[in-house]
Amino acid sequence: MESKAHSGVFHLLPLGLRVQNKLEALIDTHMQAIGASKTSLSSITTEALWRQSGRYSSNSELLRIKDRRDSGFLLSPTHEEEITALVASMVHSYKDLPLRLYQTGRKYRDERRPRGGLLRAKEFMMKDLYTFDSDSAAALETYEAVRAAYTAIFDALKVPYLVADADSGNMGGKLSHEYHFVSPKGEDTIWCCDSCNYVANEELATKRATNVDEEEDDSYPLVFRGISTDRSTEILIYVPASRSLSSEETPGWESISSYVNLHAVKRALPNDLHLDTGIEASTLSHLLSSATAPTQTISILDPSLSIAPDSSPPPSDPNPTPELTLTSPHPLTPLHPSDPCPICPKGSLDPKKSIEIAHSFHLATRYTHPLNACLSLPPASASPRAPRTPLQMTCHGIGLTRLIAALAALLHDAHGLNWPRALAPWEAVVLPSAGVAAADAEAVYDELAGGGVDVVLDDRPGKALGWKMRDAEGIGYGVVVVMGRGWAGGGREVEVQCRRLGVRRGVGVEGLGGEVGALLERL
Amino acid sequence: MESKAHSGVFHLLPLGLRVQNKLEALIDTHMQAIGASKTSLSSITTEALWRQSGRYSSNSELLRIKDRRDSGFLLSPTHEEEITALVASMVHSYKDLPLRLYQTGRKYRDERRPRGGLLRAKEFMMKDLYTFDSDSAAALETYEAVRAAYTAIFDALKVPYLVADADSGNMGGKLSHEYHFVSPKGEDTIWCCDSCNYVANEELATKRATNVDEEEDDSYPLVFRGISTDRSTEILIYVPASRSLSSEETPGWESISSYVNLHAVKRALPNDLHLDTGIEASTLSHLLSSATAPTQTISILDPSLSIAPDSSPPPSDPNPTPELTLTSPHPLTPLHPSDPCPICPKGSLDPKKSIEIAHSFHLATRYTHPLNACLSLPPASASPRAPRTPLQMTCHGIGLTRLIAALAALLHDAHGLNWPRALAPWEAVVLPSAGVAAADAEAVYDELAGGGVDVVLDDRPGKALGWKMRDAEGIGYGVVVVMGRGWAGGGREVEVQCRRLGVRRGVGVEGLGGEVGALLERL
Repeated sequence: MESKAHSGVFHLLPLGLRVQNKLEALIDTHMQAIGASKTSLSSITTEALWRQSGRYSSNSELLRIKDRRDSGFLLSPTHEEEITALVASMVHSYKDLPLRLYQTGRKYRDERRPRGGLLRAKEFMMKDLYTFDSDSAAALETYEAVRAAYTAIFDALKVPYLVADADSGNMGGKLSHEYHFVSPKGEDTIWCCDSCNYVANEELATKRATNVDEEEDDSYPLVFRGISTDRSTEILIYVPASRSLSSEETPGWESISSYVNLHAVKRALPNDLHLDTGIEASTLSHLLSSATAPTQTISILDPSLSIAPDSSPPPSDPNPTPELTLTSPHPLTPLHPSDPCPICPKGSLDPKKSIEIAHSFHLATRYTHPLNACLSLPPASASPRAPRTPLQMTCHGIGLTRLIAALAALLHDAHGLNWPRALAPWEAVVLPSAGVAAADAEAVYDELAGGGVDVVLDDRPGKALGWKMRDAEGIGYGVVVVMGRGWAGGGREVEVQCRRLGVRRGVGVEGLGGEVGALLERL
Repeated sequence: MESKAHSGVFHLLPLGLRVQNKLEALIDTHMQAIGASKTSLSSITTEALWRQSGRYSSNSELLRIKDRRDSGFLLSPTHEEEITALVASMVHSYKDLPLRLYQTGRKYRDERRPRGGLLRAKEFMMKDLYTFDSDSAAALETYEAVRAAYTAIFDALKVPYLVADADSGNMGGKLSHEYHFVSPKGEDTIWCCDSCNYVANEELATKRATNVDEEEDDSYPLVFRGISTDRSTEILIYVPASRSLSSEETPGWESISSYVNLHAVKRALPNDLHLDTGIEASTLSHLLSSATAPTQTISILDPSLSIAPDSSPPPSDPNPTPELTLTSPHPLTPLHPSDPCPICPKGSLDPKKSIEIAHSFHLATRYTHPLNACLSLPPASASPRAPRTPLQMTCHGIGLTRLIAALAALLHDAHGLNWPRALAPWEAVVLPSAGVAAADAEAVYDELAGGGVDVVLDDRPGKALGWKMRDAEGIGYGVVVVMGRGWAGGGREVEVQCRRLGVRRGVGVEGLGGEVGALLERL
């Protein structure tokens, strides 16, 4: 299906391209149903535009292009900047809204360690949809319309998937969802409640805060002293210690992630302040005790610690440092399997390895503001001084390459690949044995093709039936129709095989269309 | 249709993408007719592979990718190396041949001066087909099959084009053809005979050698002294001077291109020897007179100079330099309009500005040899010592982006674009005026769609008929069907417009399908 050319770089062979084209067509159908127009943006963008949006420095996976003038071109890993600049130049009236533009194209990423074949490659295929609305309520309506379209797309694959609440992270914005296949090959972890429909990704997952009543009397707070990435602030993190830890063995900075959910800390901190999690203990200790030590302190408390710990400066200090104490709304201790669900009273959480195949973000004005994609309000509310308002944006990606690789990994068995009907390179294949007349093979093909089945006839000369059957198993057609002994003996009966459903049954030509159709319905 | 994002970098908007998709579908039809399979190769390739083929150093238009490891990745301007490496790894039997693989994808080129919009951009869309055969005769059959497919593709556009003999240049190989649209916006020049079907590009064009009889008695040779790019050889070029030049005014090196057809000199020289045409006169003079002056000399003679000029070394020279004298098979003087055709006795040559839209090369073993795409011969001829033979390769490109830009430039008029039927975003548009009932507009649409016309209904609310008509003229649909006064007055007559054919005529609904179909046949 694909061939590895270089580390993280792959070619799609003809059958793989057919699978990808089927997926693209399925996506097109549902994008057009929500009025999205298909475009094709350049894969080349510029440093200048990415500096304007403020994303240039924070992205270490950008591939730069060296041209003869060293002009600062980049290969786009995603197109928020370009589409927003395009919309800013072309949309001049609120009558042009809502605007929904998408494309299916190649994206580029400087993977630190390309691995898992097509699951994580330098170059990959994405569908990316960008939407623009005049206000937040309209943008949320759009967000929900896309969610419905994505549900229709993934339902059509008939493979279970999960929709996880996600952190919008450095994409900016407020609302975010991820679509995952559960798979042991996955590099992501999602946490699912075993009782309600709570699903969240690793960054956003949380658990119910333990009531003070449930705490043991002898629980006491553990304190971790950290520093912000900008070195301006000492950050004190207070979490409850478990009973099994004696007060003598205070864990050091290097083991913080065993005792603290750093994602929860991040969300509890003010937006512009980031805990430096990568710093070494010795450097940290030096920074906190040196002459240039931070002049302000923020304390973050686990919600179970009802009494604010004593962290006031000693009375003798002539320059008391400015202080702020925040109680995190969510527990700061790490999630463990069977932790209580944050939503329902009875459920407990279960971590699952998964492959992320799609992602939605409500970006609000994260890009439209810096790139000046603005409109004046409609006449009714416009006054001579009406300011221009940035458009409300959402974006929605589906990783075609990764989705195909994930399905190949999920559905294959010892004999070869299996594809959902919607993606199979052909829904069915007809395999005549050497003795079958060409006209008979074509009649069987016509019977299926005439009934609307996307079928192919394997009439390659010089290949034995056994070879063709193994080839067909490897490729993963939905249904294999063998014209073998049952036909050759004059019985004019074909064998219909569907490995994924465990079906293998003799059928006459007159019943073939119905039989194959019924099997395909289930794939 | 498209939007310029940066210098030489463009986005395709929805209508432009529809045009490109129509062209891709047209090409797909004719590629599949010759048994070519569609693939999708990565746009990322490596320096190492390009060094192996020997093309790395000679290509100044390669865009390099800077990744975190400085790994020597490139953006492919063309895919001979990658496809040959792929075929080398996958084809193991002559039974797999002929093999014809193609793709439609983005290519990259570090344009020195991006200009002419999409005619010459950093990123552009190409269809590239690569074929592999076991021997030269089979490769030539393939070459002719592709020529027939290209003829069918370009004929379908119903716009005149020319097929020029071309020089295979640094692609290697022996046989080459270019497909051109004649256009004043073109950057190429092709030379056409006004009497026979001789067409050749600038590099390959030649004229009939003037007979000695026709020479004036007082013609005498002009000599230009040059040097090879590797500095090994002095190159003397002898061309006849015109009568108007007195023997006192001998033209210098800097004006050589006014007196000498340098393409013809290149072809007359041995393959591994290249005249340094870019060298400055002072540098050249220094190099030829210095102590390290070339130790060998090649003289290239225009065919009209029947007597070898006296260039033997003076007898006093103790170390005579090795010498070679070659008579060029083609005239070495530059081509001028009305020069005699090299093929037919009566025709004269006419230079035309043109846009190259496609190119075919018989590459032979130029890439299969260095990249080791080889096969053992079939059993009949195999002996225990049968050597592995490199496959015979041809390649064939169509520049989709440039072809679309060229057609837009050729067919547009003061009102907007015009497209060939095969590429129009829609073949026809129905424009109802504000007073027309929605059901009536849909009935007219259905009449056309039901007859197989690719039609769109412009029922955008709040847009006046005049606005829609101007919009439709700009877009360049094949046929515009206006439901205006002739309909509103109860006449139930539409106006069928075809700007390119100068047609504008009232038609009843019952005659509409036939009328529109007949117009589309001519587009």
